[in-house]
Amino acid sequence: MAKKWVYLFNEVEQAEAYAGDWESVRALLGGKGANLADMTRIGVPVPPGFTVSTEACNAYLAAGETFPEGVWEQELEALSSIEQMTGKKLGDAGNPLLVSCRSGAKFSMPGMMDTILNIGLNDEVAKGLIKQTGDARFVYDSYRRLVQMFGSVVLGVPDEVFEAVITARRKRANVNSDSELSAEDWQGVTQKFKELVRTYTGNDFPEDPFDQLKLATEAVFKSWNGKRAFDYRNAAGIRHDLGTAVNIVTMVFGNMGDDSATGVAMSRNASTGEIELEGDFLINAQGEDVVAGIRQTEPISHLKTTMPELYKEFEDIAKRLEKHYRNMQDMEFTIEHGKLWLLQTRDGKRTAQAEVRIAADMVEEGLISKEEAVKRVQPEQVDFFLHPQLDARARKEAQLVATGLNVSPGAAVGVVAFDADTAERWAKEEGRAVIMVRPETKPDDVHGMLAAKGILTSRGGRTSHAALVARQFGTPAVVGVSELDIDLDTREMTVGELVIKEGDYISLDGNTGEVFLGKLPTFIPDMNNPYLLKVLSWADEVRTLDVWANADYPSDAKRAREYGAQGLGLVRTEHMFFETERLPIVQRMIMAKNSTERNEAIEHLLPMQRGDFEGLFRAMDNLPVIIRLIDPPLHEFLPAYEELVQDLADLKVRLQHYHTMSEIDGALADIRTKQHYLEGVESLREANPMLGTRGVRLGILIPELTKMQVRAIFEAACTCAKEGITVHPEVMIPLTSHVNELKVQQNALEAVAKEVMEEQGITISYKFGTMIEIPRAALTADEIADVAQFFSFGTNDLTQTTFGISRDDAEAGFLVEYLNRGILPDNPFATIDENGVGKLMDLGVKLGRETRPDLEVGICGEHGGDPKTVDFCHRLGLNYVSCSPFRVPIARLAAAHAALRDKQNNAVEDKEVIATA
Amino acid sequence: MAKKWVYLFNEVEQAEAYAGDWESVRALLGGKGANLADMTRIGVPVPPGFTVSTEACNAYLAAGETFPEGVWEQELEALSSIEQMTGKKLGDAGNPLLVSCRSGAKFSMPGMMDTILNIGLNDEVAKGLIKQTGDARFVYDSYRRLVQMFGSVVLGVPDEVFEAVITARRKRANVNSDSELSAEDWQGVTQKFKELVRTYTGNDFPEDPFDQLKLATEAVFKSWNGKRAFDYRNAAGIRHDLGTAVNIVTMVFGNMGDDSATGVAMSRNASTGEIELEGDFLINAQGEDVVAGIRQTEPISHLKTTMPELYKEFEDIAKRLEKHYRNMQDMEFTIEHGKLWLLQTRDGKRTAQAEVRIAADMVEEGLISKEEAVKRVQPEQVDFFLHPQLDARARKEAQLVATGLNVSPGAAVGVVAFDADTAERWAKEEGRAVIMVRPETKPDDVHGMLAAKGILTSRGGRTSHAALVARQFGTPAVVGVSELDIDLDTREMTVGELVIKEGDYISLDGNTGEVFLGKLPTFIPDMNNPYLLKVLSWADEVRTLDVWANADYPSDAKRAREYGAQGLGLVRTEHMFFETERLPIVQRMIMAKNSTERNEAIEHLLPMQRGDFEGLFRAMDNLPVIIRLIDPPLHEFLPAYEELVQDLADLKVRLQHYHTMSEIDGALADIRTKQHYLEGVESLREANPMLGTRGVRLGILIPELTKMQVRAIFEAACTCAKEGITVHPEVMIPLTSHVNELKVQQNALEAVAKEVMEEQGITISYKFGTMIEIPRAALTADEIADVAQFFSFGTNDLTQTTFGISRDDAEAGFLVEYLNRGILPDNPFATIDENGVGKLMDLGVKLGRETRPDLEVGICGEHGGDPKTVDFCHRLGLNYVSCSPFRVPIARLAAAHAALRDKQNNAVEDKEVIATA
Repeated sequence: MAKKWVYLFNEVEQAEAYAGDWESVRALLGGKGANLADMTRIGVPVPPGFTVSTEACNAYLAAGETFPEGVWEQELEALSSIEQMTGKKLGDAGNPLLVSCRSGAKFSMPGMMDTILNIGLNDEVAKGLIKQTGDARFVYDSYRRLVQMFGSVVLGVPDEVFEAVITARRKRANVNSDSELSAEDWQGVTQKFKELVRTYTGNDFPEDPFDQLKLATEAVFKSWNGKRAFDYRNAAGIRHDLGTAVNIVTMVFGNMGDDSATGVAMSRNASTGEIELEGDFLINAQGEDVVAGIRQTEPISHLKTTMPELYKEFEDIAKRLEKHYRNMQDMEFTIEHGKLWLLQTRDGKRTAQAEVRIAADMVEEGLISKEEAVKRVQPEQVDFFLHPQLDARARKEAQLVATGLNVSPGAAVGVVAFDADTAERWAKEEGRAVIMVRPETKPDDVHGMLAAKGILTSRGGRTSHAALVARQFGTPAVVGVSELDIDLDTREMTVGELVIKEGDYISLDGNTGEVFLGKLPTFIPDMNNPYLLKVLSWADEVRTLDVWANADYPSDAKRAREYGAQGLGLVRTEHMFFETERLPIVQRMIMAKNSTERNEAIEHLLPMQRGDFEGLFRAMDNLPVIIRLIDPPLHEFLPAYEELVQDLADLKVRLQHYHTMSEIDGALADIRTKQHYLEGVESLREANPMLGTRGVRLGILIPELTKMQVRAIFEAACTCAKEGITVHPEVMIPLTSHVNELKVQQNALEAVAKEVMEEQGITISYKFGTMIEIPRAALTADEIADVAQFFSFGTNDLTQTTFGISRDDAEAGFLVEYLNRGILPDNPFATIDENGVGKLMDLGVKLGRETRPDLEVGICGEHGGDPKTVDFCHRLGLNYVSCSPFRVPIARLAAAHAALRDKQNNAVEDKEVIATA
Repeated sequence: MAKKWVYLFNEVEQAEAYAGDWESVRALLGGKGANLADMTRIGVPVPPGFTVSTEACNAYLAAGETFPEGVWEQELEALSSIEQMTGKKLGDAGNPLLVSCRSGAKFSMPGMMDTILNIGLNDEVAKGLIKQTGDARFVYDSYRRLVQMFGSVVLGVPDEVFEAVITARRKRANVNSDSELSAEDWQGVTQKFKELVRTYTGNDFPEDPFDQLKLATEAVFKSWNGKRAFDYRNAAGIRHDLGTAVNIVTMVFGNMGDDSATGVAMSRNASTGEIELEGDFLINAQGEDVVAGIRQTEPISHLKTTMPELYKEFEDIAKRLEKHYRNMQDMEFTIEHGKLWLLQTRDGKRTAQAEVRIAADMVEEGLISKEEAVKRVQPEQVDFFLHPQLDARARKEAQLVATGLNVSPGAAVGVVAFDADTAERWAKEEGRAVIMVRPETKPDDVHGMLAAKGILTSRGGRTSHAALVARQFGTPAVVGVSELDIDLDTREMTVGELVIKEGDYISLDGNTGEVFLGKLPTFIPDMNNPYLLKVLSWADEVRTLDVWANADYPSDAKRAREYGAQGLGLVRTEHMFFETERLPIVQRMIMAKNSTERNEAIEHLLPMQRGDFEGLFRAMDNLPVIIRLIDPPLHEFLPAYEELVQDLADLKVRLQHYHTMSEIDGALADIRTKQHYLEGVESLREANPMLGTRGVRLGILIPELTKMQVRAIFEAACTCAKEGITVHPEVMIPLTSHVNELKVQQNALEAVAKEVMEEQGITISYKFGTMIEIPRAALTADEIADVAQFFSFGTNDLTQTTFGISRDDAEAGFLVEYLNRGILPDNPFATIDENGVGKLMDLGVKLGRETRPDLEVGICGEHGGDPKTVDFCHRLGLNYVSCSPFRVPIARLAAAHAALRDKQNNAVEDKEVIATA
């Protein structure tokens, strides 16, 4: 018996029997096909149809684009089943069956695959159908759609040619919209289309409905390997060997008069997550009219008044589907002569904001567990709540250009680019922030949309291509700004009198749909969203990895704590040195001619540093605070060498032009000062400062400096402790590469700590530890843990040295090329390179804990807020990740995901154990 | 029964029974004591005596400087044994026994420990001894020596005070030398000495011989912890817990008239290794007179004429000792009234030249095996043969200052420093080459001698302190330049009319003993020493590690091959780019405005590179040649940024002073050129070039460049192959950190290689591989070995990144401080840091060979010529080390040592296996 390639929608049990779990059924039938079958099973009204499996597609492609044995035969069998169910027959002019042919891969890839409607029409059938329906306009509109879609998708005729015919017809008929065109117009258009097909391909349009079906099926199969689909899969990380299924569905028509309609709707609001149907529909139209955004749609709520009973039925179905799928649904529907049909359902795409609210609500509704809610919200989605938003005051004063649909939240500011290529080029090559502006977007535009900061279209609705893609990729977008007149030839757009040229700045508000002129300032919003707080609190219940924050100032520390930080993993003391009133003292210290001068300057810094630390301890009452001693090379506190050389050269040139002695005296004083600095900078200059005199090396060369810092830390800690604040200072020594460095510094510094506590007559608990940011430190972590009481991975530096890549140079240089060419899979400065840097970290943790089993180990590099890295740190068994305050909520969620993944893996292992037991 | 602390010289069997092997006997009795006992056993005439063990010393020191139970009692018992043997009695005025008390640790530490002679003398005994010998002058001379040594060593009276008394006495007696002083003079001196002791210490000189003995024993014990001894042990790497033994020996006197003498001699020439007694002696003197270098000694050959029978006896004993110890001996002897006594023997210190010849000769004489000979010559000693020597032509024209004894070979050029502190300060802090000049040297001077490039003294002989230390540490030295008048107050030295001030340059020839004025040029000698060639050929027989060389030019390659290199491990192609006629083309390539210009310049370089490679292949016929593709960042080929900024500024200033238009035009053209370069340099500048766009990264960004190099390599290889030369090119890609980099480059380059071979119609064997010089490469060596056919550890870069230390900056900066303070045990750029960098190498080798078991792995960093590193590479199982041609012989020997050490360890393991079986 031949393999079963084709499944009727009511054969879902057979598919399950063959494939196994539902995931495999989805892989076999594609997401759309599986759902149509599933809907059929639970009694949702779905037009009869069948699915040609993804296996058939793969077999077809593997066989060099020829049908494997049985596929076509089974398709014909299934067709005759549908004919029985509907009582209609394909190609039977008396009672013709029309079908659609749609692709449907395992993962939803909107607009990427090709669809053909109205298969079964030809001149003869059209005549019969007119006889049957009495609606010639409908029939010829349907017929021309078949020829148009078949022509462009299957036969490769450029779609613009067809559109031009329609536009010309509109002009001739002197009407503005397609709906005003008459039956004769469409008949003429259809005729013209068929001529175009013949001219372009050299062959007639296939009149045989079975040829149409076969060719359409093949077109879907082939489109799997089309460039657009391929690029999309690459961008979205979908495997290329999945294949697509083909769904053949009985046509139902939303364009059969005013008791017919078609639309798409989400079971909840896809932007906000509110519990309400959200979507658009058109009376007397076919589905593609809605998605393409060509006609202005009506909101789904209008259906309530227009067809109240149908609205109620649709609402019930939506609830039933939500309950069945335990998720928000994105549904396509058609009403044919007052009968509701569901054509598709799938988990709806939504904004981060909606994702969070829906997850929280569904827990309350008993649909999903807390863990499921946590799992559904991706850590990156929390980023939305930290997205830039337009500054409120600036927006008041800004010039409003127009308002459109707020389809993807967040603010975007950038220069206008009128096509995808320009947008991509400006963004990637010139590093400009770009807003991509189009009348409407198409799959071809995705590369530009991905590169843009924001998207603006003059047409389309909430479910238009532009809206879907923008939401999926988290790009702020405003669509359907109908006042906007975009002229792609002159490269400008106008709203009334206002002309905006390509390259001009505009600002979008994806939350309100407003578009402003110019470059508005933005801010990061507060994130006290109650749904988010719920999800995060559930995340905290499951995660085992602590989340700390990197903060240099008390205000940052406070915010970090509000965001849930459980400690400070990195206080960079040198940031304090750069403050206006301090820098001159720091420079005096560096330029000191002798140790007396140097110590005098250091003394001056002591009370300032002490003040800094007091503020931090107060903000972090009862939580650990890791303070890193001075790290950067000293020349960073002095003017740049090149600048000084240039200034001196300029001063000398200028000297030639002075006339009075006092001018010359003044210049000379300047020259002397600059010269002095130049000498200082010269003596400190290094060929490779990143590998130079910094970190612990500084502390060893100028122990007075780090001793002052430790004194300031402990004086501050003692003062706070006396006030009743619980302090946990941890002193972190940076850039250790050899345990002896740590011994020398730590001994000297711990003596200071003890001295201060004795002076103050109070004992506080503290730790001394080190950054692990040099490969050698990780390699000899067993020796280092003998001295250090804690480790903190400084993954920025560790990545630089492990890769031998200077971040500053490379991220503006060859690293860009490496990432573009895929030589490196990820930017190692954003996501930990597990194979290399990660191996060192693993070694560092293991060796360190061999020596000191209770060793506290964390990470404080910028990677600490990257979800993939958080997952890795969880697997390594770190105690905490530390990241910027704004990344703390993201890390909390990422840590929960990591813990849940662990739990799931353990469960799988348990199962396996049981199975083999 | 109390522990046995004291061993008579004839109790060597007991010592062996207690301690075990001879090594342990030496640890127990010290080197000197063990040898005295051993000599006693084999019948060499040694005065009766005994040794207080090192265990007694350690117990004494541990007990807070008090005698442990039994020590003193056993000393008294041993003393009475000696009294029986000699028939004399300590303190018996009628027939007094006199003894010496000398230190003797396990390892010879010449001059570091303290010696006291003539113990047993007091006023009464002196009178009795005069009666017995009838020689009052001898007795009082001996007596004053006891008081002087005891006073300075045990009681801490400054020795200068005693010397001043003698000088005054000489003046009063109006004589020039001590030997002209009379019995009365010495009696008076003795009296005065005793007064000085009383004045200085507040106590009388101890008249009781037993008190003398006890206090002397304690003084030796205590001297183990003296600063001089401590510093010496630190410098020589000797453990501090060994302790010293005390040897009490019956006094024999070389100063009992003209039938008495004393001297020291080596059984072979310590400078050249020639087979002849070499040493000095003095008639009618005590041993210290010889060593101190105060009196001008006679060469040992004179003894042949003076006392022919005794010379013969001494020669026989020397041969017997050599045969017994299978090594050249350094002996102290005394002739008392025509009777020869050996007071000490030990393995003689010798120059590298002598070491090599003696090892080779002793194999011929059947005394030692070839392996033993190889083991005896330290790899560092081969360095002597590569030591700088004075340029022959320059020396002919140079001004000869004086000639002294050539006690330690090699040339030294530097500024004169008249004391150890100055020498050390100038050398360490100011980095100056220093020649330390002293009338004679003392143990206090060692730190200055270690810091100096050369040593020059006006007094002393071949076995003087200066000569011994210089030879031990391989420092060129000339001693005993009696014409030299050194004035430590005016800080100058004069020879006749010539005045040389402190800080002036002089040049020494340690081979000839000549001293020249000024800074003479030096050269490295040819090393075709026949003894060395023998030893090296034996080394080659045992070693398993290959030795290759780093060479960039055919001339270097030829030399490397002569020195025994078995391949070229590193040809740095970019060195060729710096040649005068090429640099402008390279700069044109870098500054090219477009790819046409760039490729045109690259085309120009092709024939030049091809020529380079042909020369190398010819020189290395039949041996592998690893050619590294371009490595350094491109800005290295352009003028320095700072220089350009400065030049431009200068040009602009100068512009103000021009008058004619043509001057201004000329300046403008200059400015334009410089400005052009400045822009180029600016676009290439990097914050950390060491971690920047270099190595494989360059090849990926400008593939035309590396493709040209590969084309040149293969065109050259094909040409040579057609001439009948066997070529083994290996193309090495530098700075790989990710396997993908290697894939991209290697694929592109191997295509070029194949293309060339096809063009040339000839196939040659070749390899493509990579440097492992980035931690990530070592960590992912399994992945990299999937592509690379060979690895070569670039340990310079690997050390930089593993430690996070920029070599250029650190070796002039904090690394100096780290080494001075012992924070790092070795300079990691000289000797591989086994714990850190070594761990990565180990990982790299293991992972690489997991993927590719036959992976060829070597090292081409500068460490490749460092013996410790060679040993490590042997243990890692590398195929070869590659080093500079001049280090090749050193590495050959080091590799042999590593193999022998392995063999020995395996033998030990085998023994253990047998023992436990």
